[in-house]
Amino acid sequence: MKKGLIFIVLFVVFVQESYSQNALNETHNLMPWPKHIEVDNSKYLIDSNLTISINENNPGRVSRAAVNFLRRLSNRTGVFFNTGFSLNNEPASIEISFDKISSLSIEEDESYTLEIRNKKISIKAKTDVGALYGLQTLLQSVTYDQEGYYFPGLTVHDDPRFVWRGLMIDVARHFQPIAVLKRNLDAMASVKLNVFHWHLTDDQGFRVESKIFPKLHQKASDGLYYTQEQVKDLIDYASGLGIRVVPEFDVPGHASAILTAYPEIGSKIGYDYSIERYAGVFDPTLDPTNEKTYEFLNTLFEEMALLFPDQYFHIGGDENEGKHWTENKKIKRFKRKHKLETNHDLQTYFNIRLEKHLNSLGKKLMGWDEIMTKNMPKTAVIHSWRGENEGLPKGGSLIKAAKAGYKTVLSNGFYIDRMLSVEHHYKTEPIGDLELTKAERSNILGGEATMWSELVTPLTIDSRIWPRTAAIAERFWSQKEVTDIDNMLLRLRDVNNNLEELGLTHIKNRDVILRSMARYQDISSLITLSKICEPLKVYSRNKGGTEYKSFSPFALFADACTADAQDARTFNTAIKSYLENQDATKLTLIKTYLNKWATNYEELMFIAESPNVKPLIPLSKNLSRTSKILSSVLESKNITNEELNLLDECINALKEPYVDVELAIVNSLSDLVSYAKKFL
Amino acid sequence: MKKGLIFIVLFVVFVQESYSQNALNETHNLMPWPKHIEVDNSKYLIDSNLTISINENNPGRVSRAAVNFLRRLSNRTGVFFNTGFSLNNEPASIEISFDKISSLSIEEDESYTLEIRNKKISIKAKTDVGALYGLQTLLQSVTYDQEGYYFPGLTVHDDPRFVWRGLMIDVARHFQPIAVLKRNLDAMASVKLNVFHWHLTDDQGFRVESKIFPKLHQKASDGLYYTQEQVKDLIDYASGLGIRVVPEFDVPGHASAILTAYPEIGSKIGYDYSIERYAGVFDPTLDPTNEKTYEFLNTLFEEMALLFPDQYFHIGGDENEGKHWTENKKIKRFKRKHKLETNHDLQTYFNIRLEKHLNSLGKKLMGWDEIMTKNMPKTAVIHSWRGENEGLPKGGSLIKAAKAGYKTVLSNGFYIDRMLSVEHHYKTEPIGDLELTKAERSNILGGEATMWSELVTPLTIDSRIWPRTAAIAERFWSQKEVTDIDNMLLRLRDVNNNLEELGLTHIKNRDVILRSMARYQDISSLITLSKICEPLKVYSRNKGGTEYKSFSPFALFADACTADAQDARTFNTAIKSYLENQDATKLTLIKTYLNKWATNYEELMFIAESPNVKPLIPLSKNLSRTSKILSSVLESKNITNEELNLLDECINALKEPYVDVELAIVNSLSDLVSYAKKFL
Repeated sequence: MKKGLIFIVLFVVFVQESYSQNALNETHNLMPWPKHIEVDNSKYLIDSNLTISINENNPGRVSRAAVNFLRRLSNRTGVFFNTGFSLNNEPASIEISFDKISSLSIEEDESYTLEIRNKKISIKAKTDVGALYGLQTLLQSVTYDQEGYYFPGLTVHDDPRFVWRGLMIDVARHFQPIAVLKRNLDAMASVKLNVFHWHLTDDQGFRVESKIFPKLHQKASDGLYYTQEQVKDLIDYASGLGIRVVPEFDVPGHASAILTAYPEIGSKIGYDYSIERYAGVFDPTLDPTNEKTYEFLNTLFEEMALLFPDQYFHIGGDENEGKHWTENKKIKRFKRKHKLETNHDLQTYFNIRLEKHLNSLGKKLMGWDEIMTKNMPKTAVIHSWRGENEGLPKGGSLIKAAKAGYKTVLSNGFYIDRMLSVEHHYKTEPIGDLELTKAERSNILGGEATMWSELVTPLTIDSRIWPRTAAIAERFWSQKEVTDIDNMLLRLRDVNNNLEELGLTHIKNRDVILRSMARYQDISSLITLSKICEPLKVYSRNKGGTEYKSFSPFALFADACTADAQDARTFNTAIKSYLENQDATKLTLIKTYLNKWATNYEELMFIAESPNVKPLIPLSKNLSRTSKILSSVLESKNITNEELNLLDECINALKEPYVDVELAIVNSLSDLVSYAKKFL
Repeated sequence: MKKGLIFIVLFVVFVQESYSQNALNETHNLMPWPKHIEVDNSKYLIDSNLTISINENNPGRVSRAAVNFLRRLSNRTGVFFNTGFSLNNEPASIEISFDKISSLSIEEDESYTLEIRNKKISIKAKTDVGALYGLQTLLQSVTYDQEGYYFPGLTVHDDPRFVWRGLMIDVARHFQPIAVLKRNLDAMASVKLNVFHWHLTDDQGFRVESKIFPKLHQKASDGLYYTQEQVKDLIDYASGLGIRVVPEFDVPGHASAILTAYPEIGSKIGYDYSIERYAGVFDPTLDPTNEKTYEFLNTLFEEMALLFPDQYFHIGGDENEGKHWTENKKIKRFKRKHKLETNHDLQTYFNIRLEKHLNSLGKKLMGWDEIMTKNMPKTAVIHSWRGENEGLPKGGSLIKAAKAGYKTVLSNGFYIDRMLSVEHHYKTEPIGDLELTKAERSNILGGEATMWSELVTPLTIDSRIWPRTAAIAERFWSQKEVTDIDNMLLRLRDVNNNLEELGLTHIKNRDVILRSMARYQDISSLITLSKICEPLKVYSRNKGGTEYKSFSPFALFADACTADAQDARTFNTAIKSYLENQDATKLTLIKTYLNKWATNYEELMFIAESPNVKPLIPLSKNLSRTSKILSSVLESKNITNEELNLLDECINALKEPYVDVELAIVNSLSDLVSYAKKFL
């Protein structure tokens, strides 16, 4: 009875602030957090009699999702389901119903209602895609107690804040096989992302088969491209998960690969075009004054428009510096003749021609925010990648586009290849407190995380995308008020684990890299280090794009490390709490860490003859010395001048970027050194 | 100079017995072991200037293999290669040359020569596939010392013993997505296997799209099938690796799936055919007396013969008990009319008709050894799966077939789903000391490991196939004299690691399962247990096929365990050595293990509230008690009656199969208990 009472009290609170942060999200590991949620104290115990029914004759997507749901639920809980699906029209434990099959346009309804009670679970939605989301939420809700695994009593009414919730993967810089894309699509679906933006071409490669211009994939891909059948297969797979596929063919810049195959439409005559092996921004550019360029692009886009059914068609359009345009006299004459003052005006001319043609193919042109110039038709979609950091006013190109009447999608703040913390991305609020009219607000379709692939291979890409992109997915789906970082981190842990269950490699491939580095000796010392090191951020790894190339190693220590190093946050928080608030309860934890790092050097030395472990010795040695002294100071409250000098020396060394990583606890160690000085 | 002398002496020995077991295979981790190998003390140091050249204009397979080679070599060594391929016709470090593109028939030459010297490496082969093998051997040869990674001086002349070196994967019992197959093809290529036998249909599913009979994949696959485009893609991928693809359509038995779609060609009128959810041998059988059956199969095989370009076409033909034939009066009449005494005779009639049709399509019929009856044309290929264990004379159906004039392939002894030790398979010598004529010997094409999939999913299949299949690959490739078990195990360790580098999941997915079981708490206690437990063998897991079904869990403790449990062999060998040879040097190792297991129970209890860990408590507790007492007895040389009784009780419990595993050290523990008795 007492429990019942508590429940009622809680219930009222929850109903009142059902979409704000509340105690619920500490016990319910849902992500993205739903719009409305109520709980009760009922429990649906998961046993072998569990069955699913679906209300449609041709349930396609939902049926496939239900099969996957049962497989995952069985694996996770260890329960042997008898039939899984209800037979002979018997009532099912989980009843799924929906009204129609989604056409996967941005106008489609994505809402769903999920109810979990003792004896019955129901998922109701307007579209089959809404029903998929209900199943994902149901799977996230699974928890256990003494009696075993169960679904906790819940009522969820859910609906996304933004209609465009995307992940871009660049397959040009490093090719990603279909298998990599499929598992990432699975992960996207599990956190309710609905757009896969496929960056298919760039200076480093043209990654899709063209039957009309076969030289594109033959000469400009190193043999690493998708056949048209593979593309269809991928689109079909994505569609099954409720995910749209938006292709990108980057023009007129980022065009080294295209010009390797068809140099005749380049802007510099006689230039020796070849696939780019480095990273960066390069000069090769299509010639926008050459009619052959349009003939080529019109034909190519017609071919690709048929291959990619989505309404949106991304033409890139970014980072064209127009160097070859300026150098070309014919192009200069053309500009004068057409009264195009700048290269930017010339690119607008080019974009407008493409836009018209794409319109005639039934497509909406989308491009990076450079395409937004005064003459650009409002039917174009602006993909905002520049913001305050790039010197634009608050809200960046996104708000400018929305106010100018363009539909727009935000990626500024969601560049996950910059290797910043999940907190950074989670805090990126697309609209913030800016005042927009209803029409302006409706122009903001949503956002996309961008996975540029200069430094990622199939071995590491998952750990660069996940779990941070799950928090970004919450930013795109959940209400604006859902912003509590600690709470997000708590829920993210569970989501992170479920992603592994789904087949993602972001957790397990760390040890694959470390084992290879250590030639399959004991890797525990490397694991300890990897938990406090993070890959260099904001493109300071591979500065100027000149270190890493096609055949460079991407299984180094930095590749085993991730943003948000696992132990760093815990240690940094403990130090802060100890130093700023004199919280002595943190002392044991701090000492445990310091002692672990102090002895880690000795452990590392056992495997240090492996050539790829050797470079870590100085880092480990400095960390060990620092930790040893600090630990003893915390114990004895005593420090010598000699020790202090050594500490300073070590900390200075540790502050330097080294083997492409930064030590994510170095500031805390430094603070501890400052504190230690008072014991001199 | 001293080194030089040793080298010369060794050299002579090596040349003399170049393909027998010798000291070389303790330092050179090559597998399969080459036919002829000589070493010298030169070293090719791997640095950024390393380049590859290929002698052909259209090098296809070799070019792709060289790209993969460079990627793997760079990742493994940490070396940043400048260009990887030699530019402008400059001499390359690794020169690859071959005469022709292989057509992937069993008549093609597969030999190669590999030479590694200080300054130059060369691979020469008659076919491009030979060159691929040379590259694989080169990659396996990589080693390191103080100076870094290098290729050791070597001359290898290599050539396989058998032309047919296969792996069969059953995708009917549990569907395996294309990604799973592709990574296994990569692994096959790395150990020079050259036939992928694709078991596409069985009672549990028809896994390939038929455009002529679409009900097959629509009604009989749960939506889990390969589109024809995916099949083409897979065949293309395999061909790139030098691997042939032989499809299997199992008839007339194992036909529940076919008959679910087309019941009209079944042998029991009015029978309610449906996809089978259990494992085992079932009654549904095609009707060999119905002309419609032949119309159906002829048309289906025509469609599939076009899809699968290989010359061989497997029709299964196994395990037909003919129960429905015996029950059917029409079929009985047909047998009488055609003078077919037994059901086996009737099946021969059926097979001969299929064989004729397949011949007309340019295909050679292949079938499991039941098809070998006196009237079966000699053009059929006999796939031997039964041997001495099944009551056949020495050499089993393989030798019988070879002597009868059939081409034949061996799988008896290579059923890797039986979960037996690698030693067991490695010892299976196809021909042995049986005397065969040259013609008979040439009838034996080779062998195939068979991965039946009743108990495997994409999560676990790699760990069921690898690394054992690498040793089987050596059996198929290397000379008969290569039989040293300890030496094979030594080399297998390295091959095992290289398979992980290649993307196989056999190592890393253990922790995925254990983490999920422990709900992402500390899994070290589970790892300790998994290293001494093995899944139940020879089909005693899932006895009678009635426990596991479509929606049963396959992420249990048994799924994390593998054959050849990692610590078991070491411990068992140490115990043997200690008890039989009084080798006291083993005592420390034994005690270390015992103490680890003794304390492991306490560790396990920290995570034992996780529902899927709970079932392990009794096992861990009994092991802990046993280890504790044995450790103290070894220390004190003293034991009480009470202790002895407890030991007996624990050992008896530990000897019982439990949670689908067996404790692979239980006999050693039992021996130690017997030994302990003398201290009473």
